Amino acid sequence: MTIKKFDHIGIAVEELELSLKKWAKVFNFNFSEIEILPSRGVRVAYLFPEEGPAIELISPFGEDSPVRKFLANRGEGIHHLCFQVKDLKKAMVELKEQGLSFLTDCPLPGAGGSQIVFVHPKVLNGVLIELKEKKEEEEKGEET
Amino acid sequence: MTIKKFDHIGIAVEELELSLKKWAKVFNFNFSEIEILPSRGVRVAYLFPEEGPAIELISPFGEDSPVRKFLANRGEGIHHLCFQVKDLKKAMVELKEQGLSFLTDCPLPGAGGSQIVFVHPKVLNGVLIELKEKKEEEEKGEET
Repeated sequence: MTIKKFDHIGIAVEELELSLKKWAKVFNFNFSEIEILPSRGVRVAYLFPEEGPAIELISPFGEDSPVRKFLANRGEGIHHLCFQVKDLKKAMVELKEQGLSFLTDCPLPGAGGSQIVFVHPKVLNGVLIELKEKKEEEEKGEET
Repeated sequence: MTIKKFDHIGIAVEELELSLKKWAKVFNFNFSEIEILPSRGVRVAYLFPEEGPAIELISPFGEDSPVRKFLANRGEGIHHLCFQVKDLKKAMVELKEQGLSFLTDCPLPGAGGSQIVFVHPKVLNGVLIELKEKKEEEEKGEET
């Protein structure tokens, strides 16, 4: 499977607004507005190094958020890496052929109208990998 | 403090050779030779996405390696993020003024002849950040 772009690194935090301000100040990063993803029970915001992947701060809301469980079990810290792929369904087929599995059978709605899926961390040294396919309109906007 | 480059993401693994082959195969990454860093009790190798930071796989050797303690406490997984800076000592002064602290008072020898220091993860949401200043000759080689 070939990666299109190293999209972001996700960090689970308790206090989204405070953490966003702190990282932006310490490392001189620009940052995004906060986006709410009700289907995943999280609020997210992005910090932008001058080049390379963004840093996504993720904070849970609601009691059933998987990120709340992560924070309860392991505390704040790096949560996942996200790679962009051109065709998410094709990537899932290719990775399944290599013996990898996914946390859900089908892609889920992600930030910015994207489709995402998480690879099971068991076969990748405990690292949770998010695969992301951006929605077409956003894609075209980037290329022009 | 301003970052010069998002250098790499460090992942702690038990079996360096096997893990390197697995990540390279799954994601079509090129990869480096294995480098031994006796002063830090680790062996490391790098995987290279087409753009953005490298992925560093780190495996302990010897009984006193801090990475062995990490693996014993948390298991395999993402260990740190590394940002390149132009002047490591200046960066340390600036971050200290902002209330951050470091795991060692002075820089340590890192991979490829670099100088490195780790920021204490307590004030950065549990995320261990490595700051790295490349050695001058390597620096010049890159610019030409």
